[in-house]
Amino acid sequence: MSKTATSNKAQNEKITPRAQDFARWYQDVIMQAELAEPAEVVKGCMVIRPHGYAIWERIQAELDARFKATGHKNAYFPLLIPESFLKREAEHVEGFSPELAVVTIAGGEPLTERYVIRPTSETIIGHFYARWINSWRDLPLLINQWANVVRWELRTRLFLRTTEFLWQEGHTAHATEQEAQEEVLRMLNVYADVAENVMAMPVICGRKTRAEKFAGAVTSYCIEAMMQNGLALQAGTSHDLGQNFSKVFDIKFQNQAGTLEYAWQTSWGVSTRLIGGLIMTHSDDKGLVLPPKLAPIQAAFIPIYRKDEERSAVLEKVNQLAAELKSGGLQIEVDDREGFTPGSKFFHWEQRGVPLLIELGPRDLASGSVVLKRRDGQKQNASAAGLLETVRAVLDSMQSDLLAAAKKRLQENTVTANSFEDVAALLANATAEKGGGKFVAAHVKDDPACDAKLKELKASVRCIPLQDEYDGPGTCIITGESVPQRVIVAKAY
Amino acid sequence: MSKTATSNKAQNEKITPRAQDFARWYQDVIMQAELAEPAEVVKGCMVIRPHGYAIWERIQAELDARFKATGHKNAYFPLLIPESFLKREAEHVEGFSPELAVVTIAGGEPLTERYVIRPTSETIIGHFYARWINSWRDLPLLINQWANVVRWELRTRLFLRTTEFLWQEGHTAHATEQEAQEEVLRMLNVYADVAENVMAMPVICGRKTRAEKFAGAVTSYCIEAMMQNGLALQAGTSHDLGQNFSKVFDIKFQNQAGTLEYAWQTSWGVSTRLIGGLIMTHSDDKGLVLPPKLAPIQAAFIPIYRKDEERSAVLEKVNQLAAELKSGGLQIEVDDREGFTPGSKFFHWEQRGVPLLIELGPRDLASGSVVLKRRDGQKQNASAAGLLETVRAVLDSMQSDLLAAAKKRLQENTVTANSFEDVAALLANATAEKGGGKFVAAHVKDDPACDAKLKELKASVRCIPLQDEYDGPGTCIITGESVPQRVIVAKAY
Repeated sequence: MSKTATSNKAQNEKITPRAQDFARWYQDVIMQAELAEPAEVVKGCMVIRPHGYAIWERIQAELDARFKATGHKNAYFPLLIPESFLKREAEHVEGFSPELAVVTIAGGEPLTERYVIRPTSETIIGHFYARWINSWRDLPLLINQWANVVRWELRTRLFLRTTEFLWQEGHTAHATEQEAQEEVLRMLNVYADVAENVMAMPVICGRKTRAEKFAGAVTSYCIEAMMQNGLALQAGTSHDLGQNFSKVFDIKFQNQAGTLEYAWQTSWGVSTRLIGGLIMTHSDDKGLVLPPKLAPIQAAFIPIYRKDEERSAVLEKVNQLAAELKSGGLQIEVDDREGFTPGSKFFHWEQRGVPLLIELGPRDLASGSVVLKRRDGQKQNASAAGLLETVRAVLDSMQSDLLAAAKKRLQENTVTANSFEDVAALLANATAEKGGGKFVAAHVKDDPACDAKLKELKASVRCIPLQDEYDGPGTCIITGESVPQRVIVAKAY
Repeated sequence: MSKTATSNKAQNEKITPRAQDFARWYQDVIMQAELAEPAEVVKGCMVIRPHGYAIWERIQAELDARFKATGHKNAYFPLLIPESFLKREAEHVEGFSPELAVVTIAGGEPLTERYVIRPTSETIIGHFYARWINSWRDLPLLINQWANVVRWELRTRLFLRTTEFLWQEGHTAHATEQEAQEEVLRMLNVYADVAENVMAMPVICGRKTRAEKFAGAVTSYCIEAMMQNGLALQAGTSHDLGQNFSKVFDIKFQNQAGTLEYAWQTSWGVSTRLIGGLIMTHSDDKGLVLPPKLAPIQAAFIPIYRKDEERSAVLEKVNQLAAELKSGGLQIEVDDREGFTPGSKFFHWEQRGVPLLIELGPRDLASGSVVLKRRDGQKQNASAAGLLETVRAVLDSMQSDLLAAAKKRLQENTVTANSFEDVAALLANATAEKGGGKFVAAHVKDDPACDAKLKELKASVRCIPLQDEYDGPGTCIITGESVPQRVIVAKAY
């Protein structure tokens, strides 16, 4: 027992407590769970390790099924984009040019036309849409791409902001402005659905201010989540592109009346950043906590034994129960490694965020029971008979408890303020390291001057919420003008 | 009827017959099936369109399940590799440096250390394996990556050779040479299994000559398929890397005896090139032919009607049958588009390679039957009752018939030769355009001088087969020395 205790302590110390330094805690959780690590040799990049990638695969599967159910098909467009393409849309190039990685040499020779590695694909996809779209019969065109993109960022954080990241980007073209606008909100709702009902991460759906919108969009929508330190994380965006790109890439179609019109477009994306949001929503000082619906391993058995004769009986039962759970479609691990104490095994799986640990020793064997230990704290005895149903129920309630806890935190840390000074005071001490962040609901005009003023507080308008509860006119805390509703002001990643 | 006939003729003419120009036929099939198209604005790249990408997703799913079943996990490593990394392994840099795309500017500034876009990832992965591998307990390390790679090719062909392509690359590290060698053959067999039993594309498994092996490998293995024009297509490779990369990236582990050793490594990959192989194995002058196991749409219903009152009754039955087939797990389309003749609908789905077309008109409705038309020719009536089982059986037999036909072609076009002159004569008139290619089984020494001599014929040793039937010593047709077995000589893509 003393050996176990020592080793637990040593392992615990590898994770900085949240209260001490939230930013270090975040990094520690990722390293200890072996989700990813910085690729120092490639500036700002990371390696997504198998356990992190398995979470991404689960997120992809949930999203991809919803994209297909809403009529979208996957395709793949080139990684490299002629540099001239980006320059065609004025706002777009202004937004992205500082972040570009440029290929100037290929096949041993300098290129006459340089290529950029895609930071996003509106331009190259626009080029092909112009070829494919001729008539209203070709619309809507609903395509999604799973891809890597590169944006040269100065300050990077694992998952949250990396030079290269993985994402999906949906790109659609429609015959009418209204259809495009419906699509933008449809996909925003898909993101909100996955965030809340799969990731157990509540979000506020809203519109970005003009200053914060995507470079080239008419209007950008987003889902904003609150991390445990109270900072905001933009977790997904959906853009109404209007005819901005169709005009510069000449995407025209003959409408039913026989006249030529520019197509109406949208684009929308989420990325591996979601994994960062997942970590900072649920994890604790012991390490990663994963909602059961996304956990690559949903439960792990820890067999307990001292003597050899105990070992074989315990393992036989554990393997039998594991097979039952697997046949029920659950992802199960049996930790039968030799040379590790049960205590160190508990820590191993806890740090990796396995939602449920199932302990079975000689006494449990005798009484026909197991001990279930939920990653978020609760411990209970359960009968070994009918374990599949019990485990399903425990996982379901953990999933909803995690969402409820995150919702409660979001509510408790969302406050209202009616003056710039009050907003300033509420956000004054909030940092990524020390926490204390809030979502402040305040009346702010959608005016780039107001966004600039909030920058003095290192804060921003996260979104102009679509939810009714923020409705109701008031006086802008900066300009004094009347505005129709409150917006969410916060410090953000 | 005359309208249908005209439109069929017009559509038919879009595909060049194989006998006239196989290379143009290949391009035409891809364009008409909307699988992909050249991205002229990005040299040598292609866009993989939704129908082509859906086939890739099916191939990915089949491979990924087998990778996971053999203990591999997916991960993701950076797209960009420090240029210096490639230079560490002498053969590796020699093989890849002519094909590199180089990033020299990023974030608006010239880079002090330039990056190449990965042409393959042995070096960057080797760098991380050195961090992760310390003890024999960390081995084997079995990781796969789904990714895009860039190799600046001069002559490109859709799917077969493009500047950017999608692939998977497995990278493993082992404690012993024997384990690594077992892994290399295990994964070669996974590839052969998917090629034959999913793609219905028979392959010859073999070893590459020293001249043809992967740059940096000790030994390379491959699967080689024969296209309808008799040319060979290297469809997948599996490499025994020995300790070549572990020595230059310092991947060392403490073995059970407590001494430090370099790890033994493998790498293996298949790419979107497989789709090219699929097309050239099965398709015909009408367009794409897909084996049912890979078809994104396995059957399409073509409702036949002339009058409005026929329409509703026919569509009701068609939708009911489609629902039955879908509930059985099949991928089904109902072509209820207005304004298209049944004939043009047949052509539409035939060109896209849908394995089974199901026709139902008023007379079929009355007799409780449907007409099943297999993409590879056979037509039969079937009872509408129990259609799911019938369709499953038809698809299964189409799958095995396609494999049998491809096997027959491979056998018929594999010949033996015992002199260089005979090999030269057999391959003299073979071209990618006109066909006439053969697999020639001949005795050739594994010596770069022999590979060079075969280049005079525009041919190469495709592989030194692992199959027994090629065993048996003989005289090398070039050097006159005794060699233990025949090899496959052919012209290739």
